[in-house]
Amino acid sequence: MFSKRIDRLTSSLVREILALTQKRDVISFAGGLPAEYTMPPFDFADIPPHLRQYGTTEGEPALRQAIAEQVTALGRPCTADQVLITSGSQQGLDLVSKLFIDEGTPVLVESPSYLAALQSFKLFGARFDALPLSPSGVDPAQMRTEIEHNRPAFAYLIPTFQNPSGYCYDRATRQAVAQVLEEHGVPLIEDEPYRELVFDDCDRQPICSFMTKGPWVYLGSFSKTAIPGFRIGFMVCSPELYPYFVRLKQSTDLHTNRIGQWWIGQFVSGPDYAAHLDKVRGAYKEKRDLMAAALGRHMTGLAQWESPKGGLFFWLQLAHKIDTRLLLVKALDKNLAFMPGEPFFPGNVEQSGMIRLNFSHADAAGIEKGVTILAQTIREFIADMPEDGGGPVEI
Amino acid sequence: MFSKRIDRLTSSLVREILALTQKRDVISFAGGLPAEYTMPPFDFADIPPHLRQYGTTEGEPALRQAIAEQVTALGRPCTADQVLITSGSQQGLDLVSKLFIDEGTPVLVESPSYLAALQSFKLFGARFDALPLSPSGVDPAQMRTEIEHNRPAFAYLIPTFQNPSGYCYDRATRQAVAQVLEEHGVPLIEDEPYRELVFDDCDRQPICSFMTKGPWVYLGSFSKTAIPGFRIGFMVCSPELYPYFVRLKQSTDLHTNRIGQWWIGQFVSGPDYAAHLDKVRGAYKEKRDLMAAALGRHMTGLAQWESPKGGLFFWLQLAHKIDTRLLLVKALDKNLAFMPGEPFFPGNVEQSGMIRLNFSHADAAGIEKGVTILAQTIREFIADMPEDGGGPVEI
Repeated sequence: MFSKRIDRLTSSLVREILALTQKRDVISFAGGLPAEYTMPPFDFADIPPHLRQYGTTEGEPALRQAIAEQVTALGRPCTADQVLITSGSQQGLDLVSKLFIDEGTPVLVESPSYLAALQSFKLFGARFDALPLSPSGVDPAQMRTEIEHNRPAFAYLIPTFQNPSGYCYDRATRQAVAQVLEEHGVPLIEDEPYRELVFDDCDRQPICSFMTKGPWVYLGSFSKTAIPGFRIGFMVCSPELYPYFVRLKQSTDLHTNRIGQWWIGQFVSGPDYAAHLDKVRGAYKEKRDLMAAALGRHMTGLAQWESPKGGLFFWLQLAHKIDTRLLLVKALDKNLAFMPGEPFFPGNVEQSGMIRLNFSHADAAGIEKGVTILAQTIREFIADMPEDGGGPVEI
Repeated sequence: MFSKRIDRLTSSLVREILALTQKRDVISFAGGLPAEYTMPPFDFADIPPHLRQYGTTEGEPALRQAIAEQVTALGRPCTADQVLITSGSQQGLDLVSKLFIDEGTPVLVESPSYLAALQSFKLFGARFDALPLSPSGVDPAQMRTEIEHNRPAFAYLIPTFQNPSGYCYDRATRQAVAQVLEEHGVPLIEDEPYRELVFDDCDRQPICSFMTKGPWVYLGSFSKTAIPGFRIGFMVCSPELYPYFVRLKQSTDLHTNRIGQWWIGQFVSGPDYAAHLDKVRGAYKEKRDLMAAALGRHMTGLAQWESPKGGLFFWLQLAHKIDTRLLLVKALDKNLAFMPGEPFFPGNVEQSGMIRLNFSHADAAGIEKGVTILAQTIREFIADMPEDGGGPVEI
């Protein structure tokens, strides 16, 4: 009755957990939910009435221009003609899938990677070639080997404050990756929803800025720095790809809502935007430090982690390589939510022993209480484990 | 380099024409653009700040509840749990394609049908079985034969003020169609963006209301009666389909913008909504009558048409079966836009001799002037035609 892709439609852990965290008494380290106190207030006093009408598929000119200027300032020269406004950067992933993926198409991804991207690619039939990720990024030599062996349709990378790992590629890796991709003509899909959430100094120049020709696609979002409820993201791409994406976008939803586009366009071009970003960074840095301290107090010996230089997540390797989905079930009983590691891996991983903790949504007391509950849950889980229930990992 | 579906990505006439009509001096009978003077004013004074946060994939509870009540009142009992808010009803079509269509999947459509639906289905690989459309609807007996012969994955129908024809299925046809589909277990996709734009008495009870089980999907929109710039549409479906659509929607754009959902939810539940609909209907009825009069004055002998009982379009059969895309080129030289008939046909039609005229967007003077230009353009086109350039049609 249904299409073949429905067999590949995995149950969405993210969706189910987000639904659970709507209950007020749950401490959520799960989603990438920004904290509401960092969000600018609504202000629609000056909204032009002509925005009620249908708009163009490409998006509002003022917002496209502002984005082109920002991306150019990052070192990737581009014009507004290369900017497509999307209904959240999730839609950028859907459009990438539509442009590139048939059943069985090989796609190069980091391991681990953003699970909603993996789900979208898989839905369209992608077969994953996985590149293990280290704190400095993927290994360019290994990338070259994978490309020569598997001829992937594109490489999907999240170089800055990667989701879920929080890693940030160093400059040499960014340059080397750009060179390998360009040499082999493999399109780069560079996803950067977290780049503005930087707390400590690190290299953040987009990989696509090191490419002379392309093809490249650069995905961005305003959901982490401004107002996620508007669902405004963007795609900038090398010119030869642009007309395809516009037609695919038109067929998908005609165009993105104009009210959100107008608001974001005003906000990011306004005089207070730089100060707002500083405020958000300061707020989240404080939260990161709170969670780092709480982890140090309660999780030492139970897991190891690096303190992320930006983004919204800690990525923990537990001392026991357990199925963390089972751990989540126990944690939810205690009204704590986190993201289990397994779904972030492009291969079938049954016992990752990894979990992702978001530190932006819970308040200070929630962070302390949540980490305490987490440590307690892990201890109980391990105590209840059968002898062969997950070997200890060298930490 | 690209997926196979990109070979099926047709150039979008709608998009290109909408771009052209942004020029202020073009009289546009092309798109389905509502008139801005019928749109309610923006009012965000009471918008709750919590709508800045991410929302749920299903949509805002208040809006889902209001839609469930409205659809129940149409004769199709349903609950809010069956309502999915979409980013315009175009997204409903994208989700339907994702759920049902593989390469080569047979799909039953009216001929002519809504071209953006045909484009979406084709992009995903649909093969069309076309049912000729008459003013009372499709022929249920012919539908049965097509179903038995081709086993389509679904039937896509626009029974009320169909696009492009403006036809409205009569009650007997609605009932018979429901029965045929249900007997054969073929899912109904019923698309009703125009149902509230009714000027003359006619039967509008949804086909899905005559089905006892389903599967059925009912698509609706607020773009024609309220504010298209919000991009708020909806899907209601039989319960067994709902979980699939939610997951597909999540992978497509996580959720629809909450600001538009809130605004529409307030508006359609508010005390002024019924009066607003009356106002919109009155305004468009006036426009329809203006265009009917102008057509009578200038187009008699050049074309034949029925006056639509609702919706936004006249559908004209020209006296000569010409390629109306070529006629459009000539009309655009005179700053007039309309929709050529060819792309509305699911088969490859090269000389439809049909055109679609929208009457909602142009003002009274524009309607008179535009129809005058149209008649003149047709006369010149026919005069310039080679002898074999399109035979006359019996009108």
